[in-house]
Amino acid sequence: MNPTRSLAEFVADTRDVPRFAIDEAKRTLINVIAISISASEHSSSRRLVAWARAEGATPRSTVIGSDLRTSPALAAQVNGFLAHLQDYDDTHFPTVLHPSAPTWPAVLAAAEERGASGLDTLVAFALGEEVACRIAMSVHPWHYDAGWHITGTVGVFGAAAGAGRVMGLDAGALVNALGLAGTQASGVREVFGTDGKPMHAAKAAANGYQAADLARMGHNAAPDILGGRRGFWAVLSPGGHSEDALLADLGTRWELRRNGLKPYANGVVSHPIQDAVIRLRNEHALTPDAVTRIEARVCPLVLELMNRPDPHAGLEGKFSFQHCAAAALVDGAGHDAQFTDARVADPVIAAVRARVSAVVDPAIPEHEAYVTITLTDGRQVATHVEHASGSPENPLPDAVLDQKFRALVEPVYGPARAARLLDAARNLDGAAGIGELLALAAR
Amino acid sequence: MNPTRSLAEFVADTRDVPRFAIDEAKRTLINVIAISISASEHSSSRRLVAWARAEGATPRSTVIGSDLRTSPALAAQVNGFLAHLQDYDDTHFPTVLHPSAPTWPAVLAAAEERGASGLDTLVAFALGEEVACRIAMSVHPWHYDAGWHITGTVGVFGAAAGAGRVMGLDAGALVNALGLAGTQASGVREVFGTDGKPMHAAKAAANGYQAADLARMGHNAAPDILGGRRGFWAVLSPGGHSEDALLADLGTRWELRRNGLKPYANGVVSHPIQDAVIRLRNEHALTPDAVTRIEARVCPLVLELMNRPDPHAGLEGKFSFQHCAAAALVDGAGHDAQFTDARVADPVIAAVRARVSAVVDPAIPEHEAYVTITLTDGRQVATHVEHASGSPENPLPDAVLDQKFRALVEPVYGPARAARLLDAARNLDGAAGIGELLALAAR
Repeated sequence: MNPTRSLAEFVADTRDVPRFAIDEAKRTLINVIAISISASEHSSSRRLVAWARAEGATPRSTVIGSDLRTSPALAAQVNGFLAHLQDYDDTHFPTVLHPSAPTWPAVLAAAEERGASGLDTLVAFALGEEVACRIAMSVHPWHYDAGWHITGTVGVFGAAAGAGRVMGLDAGALVNALGLAGTQASGVREVFGTDGKPMHAAKAAANGYQAADLARMGHNAAPDILGGRRGFWAVLSPGGHSEDALLADLGTRWELRRNGLKPYANGVVSHPIQDAVIRLRNEHALTPDAVTRIEARVCPLVLELMNRPDPHAGLEGKFSFQHCAAAALVDGAGHDAQFTDARVADPVIAAVRARVSAVVDPAIPEHEAYVTITLTDGRQVATHVEHASGSPENPLPDAVLDQKFRALVEPVYGPARAARLLDAARNLDGAAGIGELLALAAR
Repeated sequence: MNPTRSLAEFVADTRDVPRFAIDEAKRTLINVIAISISASEHSSSRRLVAWARAEGATPRSTVIGSDLRTSPALAAQVNGFLAHLQDYDDTHFPTVLHPSAPTWPAVLAAAEERGASGLDTLVAFALGEEVACRIAMSVHPWHYDAGWHITGTVGVFGAAAGAGRVMGLDAGALVNALGLAGTQASGVREVFGTDGKPMHAAKAAANGYQAADLARMGHNAAPDILGGRRGFWAVLSPGGHSEDALLADLGTRWELRRNGLKPYANGVVSHPIQDAVIRLRNEHALTPDAVTRIEARVCPLVLELMNRPDPHAGLEGKFSFQHCAAAALVDGAGHDAQFTDARVADPVIAAVRARVSAVVDPAIPEHEAYVTITLTDGRQVATHVEHASGSPENPLPDAVLDQKFRALVEPVYGPARAARLLDAARNLDGAAGIGELLALAAR
């Protein structure tokens, strides 16, 4: 027995996955579908779809947000790109791994190809995601600190494990799948801020899928890609690794518990401010013209990373806590629609933005904020957010996830189809297959 | 200007490549085609061809040794696998990089797709190969010693550069191509001895091709994937790197000068023995029954790595200097045909094998050997090989390369077609395109 083999047996032999893991898997899928449909409108996505279309592969797998049908590996590649393009995917808090963007596309491609049931598909994702998070924990923090983009390097294992589970690989074949996947682990942080970053999730998904498929056909690899003398730990995390972090409580503790969904499409440090403003807005029915001041007390990172009182472009808005707070008050949200050039230039939002300020308090952690809003009649309303929504201590409520889904999908597909798609995802564990879901997710 | 940009400008702007580089590029191509056709008979190759066939891509690119026509990226993948499967490809002596296996398939795919002339194809390879060898030198020996398989990690840059040159990318697009390629650099030595190893060359070729193609379409990446703070040097070679090794004499010194072709399909340390035996065999018209003893004085590695007096399987013969010497005497060669189970069991070869011995001399380097053969009439003949054939000081003669080509191709395609194919490769620099060559290389 070695660590790679232990993971392979876990993936091959686990029969029952707890209910909450199935539910959480569904929530990550709802999230992935929503952000992928939204991302499909971007020019970088259109470029990759055009590239995949030119491959001319047999049309048998769904690309989300597109009319393209292609091969499983190519569909996994494009879908991985879409899921990670806008940095709006889920985050495994202990490691900053984004597990869904590489794993879900590989699982979906395998499930569509093999006609897996909805429940089997969700189980395969839960197992693949667990593998990715476990490997991420085994090399955290050395690996990321060394410059690796963990979503690429570790994501390929999750993709191979999840796809391999759908294919019904036994533990021996899964060892080969993980070996073929792990020796393709790649992605450096140097390309952050470019098309190279979502390509990490894209290729992790596709490479993981292919690794599983080749292992199914008989390709072999090393018996222990993780722990071998020239394997993943030794070569990609020479600064340190922990076998205990990899395997402790495997099958009883599930990392989906620590995997958060983002409520807002901007940097995470201003999320507690947005939570607070939206809470006060809704509790007190605040309108923009009733507000004279929005004052926040926050962790120092907010001013370091997001102090931009007068943003002009949409993307700048994502790095302006003032804009994030103002949009939260005016729109009650922080989706892509709040970060367009037009919305950043909107006079109502700009007027509120000018009334937003923050003071820092080094004792306040990143996910916490105090916000006081002063009204035109002199009254003050205040609230305290201890854990931003979407953090493990305060999971995103289903209602907010649904709202995010509608906000991202309705502008592309309209409300009726968005509702049917959300319904299909919510009921996936009872579905005989994933065909209906994917038909609604395609354009 | 930064190191990545310097390489990109070299690839985009070089107009003239020296004659010897064109000739050497042709020789590497002859070698790649021969070993790929031979490798296409292996079960691992058939498996990858089956996988690619199932993708069902538009038939527009040639897979060597196969009737499959597929997309450029998939053809590059399969051809990369074939070129590296048997470890019979070329070796850049200063770094142990195998530059052709990842680079040629990407260049061929791009050239076939775009209708490049034979000469432009050869120039593109020479430039891509130079990029790969230069990057390899910039991280040698730290990178390989850390456990990376340099043919995968660095090969992807050569593939992107070579394919990008064929596509006519300017320096800016080539920077993006190298960025998209470099962030996919992968391959650990843990999978040596498995299907994972040739997959490194396979995926390097395909990923490099796709990187160039996406950059052509507008995908961007980091401005300096090599030297950036979280780039290739920092993350994949933290133990050290040399910008001088990367750039010194770029465009005047060509690394194809130090890129050797293997005359024998076995481990390199017994090559000088085989050279010596074949030389004596040919000079003195030796027959097996005329020989009573073959005695070699060699470097210690021969006994450490290849002392196997009584091999039984074909693969064992590759690790037996006794078998290599005996086959050299009996057949005058050391190709795959000399390492079949049948040939290892052959009684004539086995009888000679029992008469082979070696003594080590620590003063003798790896590429040198002294051999004395004693004949049944008591005479002795002896020779000294200072530099094994295929080393930079003693390049493989064209006649021996042709012999290797015929030995590998004729069993698959027959002598007439092998001769036509070799002729097409030898005359490639005068050809309007590479279509005829590839049509003959396909099955």
